[in-house]
Amino acid sequence: MDLSHRKVAKTLKIVDSSGNPASNKQINVKLKNHEFLFGCGAFDSIPYVTGVNNPSLPPAEDTMNKWLDLFNYGTLPFYWGMYEKEEGKDDRDKLRPAAEFLTGRGTTVKGHPLCWHTVCADWLMNYDNKTILKKQLERIDREVTLYKGLIDMWDVINEVVIMPIFDKYDNAITRICKENGRVGLIKKVFEEAHACNPDATLLLNDFNTSISYEILIDGCLEAGVPISAIGIQSHQHQGYWGKEKLEEVLDRFSHFGLPIHFTENTIVSGSLIPEYIEDLNDWQVDEWPTTPEGEERQAKEIEEIYRILFAHPQVEAITTWDFKDGAWLGAPSGFLRKDNSIKPSYEMLKKLIHEEWNTDETLVTDENGYVNVEGFKGEYEISSSEGKTTVKLSDDKEMIVVL
Amino acid sequence: MDLSHRKVAKTLKIVDSSGNPASNKQINVKLKNHEFLFGCGAFDSIPYVTGVNNPSLPPAEDTMNKWLDLFNYGTLPFYWGMYEKEEGKDDRDKLRPAAEFLTGRGTTVKGHPLCWHTVCADWLMNYDNKTILKKQLERIDREVTLYKGLIDMWDVINEVVIMPIFDKYDNAITRICKENGRVGLIKKVFEEAHACNPDATLLLNDFNTSISYEILIDGCLEAGVPISAIGIQSHQHQGYWGKEKLEEVLDRFSHFGLPIHFTENTIVSGSLIPEYIEDLNDWQVDEWPTTPEGEERQAKEIEEIYRILFAHPQVEAITTWDFKDGAWLGAPSGFLRKDNSIKPSYEMLKKLIHEEWNTDETLVTDENGYVNVEGFKGEYEISSSEGKTTVKLSDDKEMIVVL
Repeated sequence: MDLSHRKVAKTLKIVDSSGNPASNKQINVKLKNHEFLFGCGAFDSIPYVTGVNNPSLPPAEDTMNKWLDLFNYGTLPFYWGMYEKEEGKDDRDKLRPAAEFLTGRGTTVKGHPLCWHTVCADWLMNYDNKTILKKQLERIDREVTLYKGLIDMWDVINEVVIMPIFDKYDNAITRICKENGRVGLIKKVFEEAHACNPDATLLLNDFNTSISYEILIDGCLEAGVPISAIGIQSHQHQGYWGKEKLEEVLDRFSHFGLPIHFTENTIVSGSLIPEYIEDLNDWQVDEWPTTPEGEERQAKEIEEIYRILFAHPQVEAITTWDFKDGAWLGAPSGFLRKDNSIKPSYEMLKKLIHEEWNTDETLVTDENGYVNVEGFKGEYEISSSEGKTTVKLSDDKEMIVVL
Repeated sequence: MDLSHRKVAKTLKIVDSSGNPASNKQINVKLKNHEFLFGCGAFDSIPYVTGVNNPSLPPAEDTMNKWLDLFNYGTLPFYWGMYEKEEGKDDRDKLRPAAEFLTGRGTTVKGHPLCWHTVCADWLMNYDNKTILKKQLERIDREVTLYKGLIDMWDVINEVVIMPIFDKYDNAITRICKENGRVGLIKKVFEEAHACNPDATLLLNDFNTSISYEILIDGCLEAGVPISAIGIQSHQHQGYWGKEKLEEVLDRFSHFGLPIHFTENTIVSGSLIPEYIEDLNDWQVDEWPTTPEGEERQAKEIEEIYRILFAHPQVEAITTWDFKDGAWLGAPSGFLRKDNSIKPSYEMLKKLIHEEWNTDETLVTDENGYVNVEGFKGEYEISSSEGKTTVKLSDDKEMIVVL
């Protein structure tokens, strides 16, 4: 697979602090952080920072260390019904420390989601539609402003294709989506988020990958909605999509010319949810064990997915949804088992990200201090016997590095 | 069913030419033409006006007389591949007389369609996409301008949900739809048509009645596309939708608040096309006979459809696609059999339109010349022993009528 779009081919001129070329000098060029966003749900950072951890579970510290060894990008939960169970009392005391912890470790953080009909705040239903919309926009204003600088990436609105016709239970967001229309509501929530943080990366996110989602995006773009990236969910609890479907989805959603984020990827290492289940949330089981064969299959399928997505020039992020087994739906969907032991998928992905797609080279400058570097885009540590520095290598332009 | 939205309850003041009230005078109030558009494909008007009629077929005059006895609204064919087989040589010499003939008989005419990937001009494929789009817009300009005043209603673009992914054969319109996006192309063609005739009724038309079409309309409206009415095709060669589906479709497409036109309705009076056929055009048969049982069923189903649609306040037009059996796909889909004999569906619809939904009353004015009229909206002939006049009754405001 061609990965040239993920790489730089760059000439560095190494100089000392007086600007003199470092001639014939041995230097080390080491990738510290990929430009590509290798992500995962980072919900475990909340018990870690708050210290509120179920004592019957493995320590959150161990979970987070394993998480940080693998990923540079994490999703934090902003479900309105959980973040603000009671009107006016929000969870900023938990979420801010979690976001600070993650960004302090070089992790890009995304908030998920600002508007959704599921896990929505029930107290909103006490208001009329006009007030619900007003509170929704105020909520966006509050979160986007408060977390600015820490969280500059948001799933602004989630699962709009089904939103106005969702009828499993009454909720405030379906009500206002019905009234404003899909594109009308999307436009309002995106414009609010964009106004509060014009530099933020704003995503539309959906599990529906049909022609309906394509048409929705098309309409939004023609209506001037400031969508930064297209979010595609790929929960595969009912079986691996396979290469063909994955490539077909990429093909259909890439023609908009926007970046694509795979926002919620799941491959289980146990039995599959039967085809006849339409809403995955209807699958309620007491036990859903991981199996050795399932884990081998999971690792292979995840490897194929990551290779295909990393090779596609428009894909900028892949997020695996559950870091550990037993999270959403109790599924064996993680890179770790429930006891925090590492599954083959973890080892496989670590090899891909930190070995196969890594850059760590020792080079020697020429007489004039020049050296040619080829490597994966990202943040680098460049070091010599004289010292070290951190630079971002993301294009092919010549660059002066002071060591 | 409540039909109050189809009616006026109006006070008329009948006066003589000097303005004196016609006291205690007997008058007749007779509906001449419904405001509601009862339509049908009017393709038969072309052989009628040109005199080019296959001698083995029943005379076009007989066909057109039967057509005009039933309908006040007709669709004329503007398929680009037929209207302009050779670039620069169009069929205005046939279409203009046909449109003039129909409008001269009080018929509203719609042109179908200005942009479509099917029956498209093959010579367009000799051009690059930029030129195809230019020629498409010029074509719209030409037709909308030339027929202005005769044809002020257009299916501007047809079947856009499938348009960019249509892959049965290469064609110029699929190419430019892929490049411009669905909403992008819709916007361009609508804006062109609207600029050429700002008063025209401009329709988006589709056979796809799924959520995808809803989302497409939603996006178009948010993007400012000047859609006057939503066109819904209802070809039911594979079986009658039934009351439930018809009402569900009405429910989903009425929430935009726009008028709805049922643009292409078909109920066959013979065997059905099997479910496994996806594109009706793939159904090629030598003979497709009408049957007595099929004709009874067809009449009942058409009656149910027309009653439901006429009762819905947002529906402004119903067009049955084929007037005669043996037209599109050779189906027994008409109100007439191939030999021009009348089917039960014709008799039934004539009773509905011209008896049950008719107004023809003899009333007596009071001392001051006032009379209260209740009747179906439309053009009326009001007459007394003194003379007669034609007026349009479309609201409940008091009106002075000079007789």
